[in-house]
Amino acid sequence: MSYTSEQLKGLSLFYKNQLLNNTITFWFPRSIDEEYGGYLFMRDADGSLIDDDKAVWIQGRGAWLLSTLCNTVEHRKEWLDWAKSGIDFLNKYGFDADGQMFFHVTRSGQPIRKRRYYFSETFAVIANAAYAKASGDEQAAEKARYLFGKCIEYSTTPGLLPAKFTKTRPTKGIGVPMIMMNTAQQLRETIGDPRCDEWISIWIEEIKNDFVKDDIKCVMEQVAPDGSIVDHIDGRTLNPGHAIEGAWFILHEAKYRNNDPELIALGCKMLDYMWERGWDKQHGGILYFKDVYDKPVQEYWQDMKFWWPHNETIIATLLAYTLTGDEKYARWHKLVHNYSYEKFHDKENGEWFGYLHRDGSLAQTAKGNMFKGPFHLPRQEWYCAQLLQGLGY
Amino acid sequence: MSYTSEQLKGLSLFYKNQLLNNTITFWFPRSIDEEYGGYLFMRDADGSLIDDDKAVWIQGRGAWLLSTLCNTVEHRKEWLDWAKSGIDFLNKYGFDADGQMFFHVTRSGQPIRKRRYYFSETFAVIANAAYAKASGDEQAAEKARYLFGKCIEYSTTPGLLPAKFTKTRPTKGIGVPMIMMNTAQQLRETIGDPRCDEWISIWIEEIKNDFVKDDIKCVMEQVAPDGSIVDHIDGRTLNPGHAIEGAWFILHEAKYRNNDPELIALGCKMLDYMWERGWDKQHGGILYFKDVYDKPVQEYWQDMKFWWPHNETIIATLLAYTLTGDEKYARWHKLVHNYSYEKFHDKENGEWFGYLHRDGSLAQTAKGNMFKGPFHLPRQEWYCAQLLQGLGY
Repeated sequence: MSYTSEQLKGLSLFYKNQLLNNTITFWFPRSIDEEYGGYLFMRDADGSLIDDDKAVWIQGRGAWLLSTLCNTVEHRKEWLDWAKSGIDFLNKYGFDADGQMFFHVTRSGQPIRKRRYYFSETFAVIANAAYAKASGDEQAAEKARYLFGKCIEYSTTPGLLPAKFTKTRPTKGIGVPMIMMNTAQQLRETIGDPRCDEWISIWIEEIKNDFVKDDIKCVMEQVAPDGSIVDHIDGRTLNPGHAIEGAWFILHEAKYRNNDPELIALGCKMLDYMWERGWDKQHGGILYFKDVYDKPVQEYWQDMKFWWPHNETIIATLLAYTLTGDEKYARWHKLVHNYSYEKFHDKENGEWFGYLHRDGSLAQTAKGNMFKGPFHLPRQEWYCAQLLQGLGY
Repeated sequence: MSYTSEQLKGLSLFYKNQLLNNTITFWFPRSIDEEYGGYLFMRDADGSLIDDDKAVWIQGRGAWLLSTLCNTVEHRKEWLDWAKSGIDFLNKYGFDADGQMFFHVTRSGQPIRKRRYYFSETFAVIANAAYAKASGDEQAAEKARYLFGKCIEYSTTPGLLPAKFTKTRPTKGIGVPMIMMNTAQQLRETIGDPRCDEWISIWIEEIKNDFVKDDIKCVMEQVAPDGSIVDHIDGRTLNPGHAIEGAWFILHEAKYRNNDPELIALGCKMLDYMWERGWDKQHGGILYFKDVYDKPVQEYWQDMKFWWPHNETIIATLLAYTLTGDEKYARWHKLVHNYSYEKFHDKENGEWFGYLHRDGSLAQTAKGNMFKGPFHLPRQEWYCAQLLQGLGY
């Protein structure tokens, strides 16, 4: 089964319509905090606020989304104003005295928690970069470039951030090269930065050499520094939806590099390996965690269906299909698209639920919390609509 | 419905038989590490090893269990030898240079992770205390008393251990007074310690005054330092099985204090409040997390059924019934006992599975991992058998 032109046009319209009239309208304008700036994103299914705290990751992601809509869909003044509200809040309250960013702050910006990761920083990079492009604000551009440099420093300087584990059994995660690659892509494609291309190549090499295992057809989530498999519970744990997100970052790079055939092959095989391991043949949907050798994983909720792996898989399969024309990817795209919009989409209130049991029944109703907000779903709808529109659909 | 004497005799035999011929035999002797000492507890349903790492909590819990069997069931030399193996391993490899204990070590005892909690220490207290009683080893007794003092110091000296959160919104958890109370009870009832009674009274007062909320019939998991409810997602999150564990620690204390009526009333109302909030009227079993105002909680897996809340609830309901004769508690005990031995118990291989979906279907097969090992289930079977035997059944 391939997609016809009509079907691709229909998908293009569907994603754009969902984005603008179902997803964005769930979050905005209700989430704008008129009093303190930033966003009040922790909401129940019906949009009611369940917590007025602010998750720093998602403040950045929200500002990125609004700025990106300005840059690519339509330059609406309200979107730009709302983006500025998030950027200003992050500048005022997002940073500790040591320059690191917080993870969780109160409504008025008082810090609750700082973590030993720099994901708050990566989301601040893409937020500032997209906002700088949308607004012409040179300070935001400088901030994006400065923070990108800090992230490179954090990722390449062992011991700069406090360690969670001792040095007994060193490991590294695919999350770092993945998020850094996507951060660099966003930076490059908004305000540009001469460092990006070279670093992206380095991170892709690391993923290809150390995390992708052709002999067992698998993308590892963690490995030893030399890329070998760490045969303990944590080291064996796979996150298929995350690896599939990595696959589309690489397919995106392939497209940017004039359909580079080696990168297309790499991204497609990552998708192939992890679709095979992650797609639930019994109930449909992407399983959250799997053990590389099918042993039990530590995380008891490993067979739940989360919203975001489905967003990543919708993007990855559509991108793979448009780059290769392989009908397998159209079939997979249709499977995951239909599953997701049937099971996750809240027909009554808009947006998606976040958490289903393995069998597809709803586990809880929150639309926004410390980890969920206007990011994976609107990014998917935006990315797919842009992709198809760019191809003439 | 009350229990007849015959039924109580039947339960007494059932628990003892399960303990000795189904639960203990799953773990031992296969888990004894003849090469490095300590225990290899991370096992799949059939007993096969899934990881040879060692969780420090569970090394202590295992040594406690084996020593306790010697002290209360039968003085078997093999149990004492196996207990010594765990005690020796902890002494050799459990402690960092700063005196704090690790959380996770390799098979040979190399440290993998240290956490900012002192639960490893509390389990080392009860392990050493029980082992000292079983063996007469005075060094173990000293170690237990010394570590108990360290735990009191950690629990009463803000800033002594690194903080997870900033000082913006201070909270405290019921876990600290609960685990300290149980640690003191174990210490007192094995080798004795003059500090225990007074500290236990202090911790019970703290639970009664700050965590038990009669106006909304609830036991909070976290509160502000003054006992007020923190109306944010984390502050609202209840853990009914944990609160029910706290209830039976208090009922145990009531029994120790010649059936102190105030403590019986306190323990019973904690059980009443949290049975009402935690028991799943649709599928049976104890739900893992609930929001105090029935809003969504952060933890997406909040409606899963874990093994250990069921162990705690079996103990609490049986203890409440034997202390009060209230037939409600016999009815609840029967409900949770039947649910648990039907759903969690592995009829094929012995012991219990750890993790069920809300509907009671199996979520994953591990018998042992970083958090599960020979503790909650054998402690329940041991405690209930001892309780009934002590009452003449």
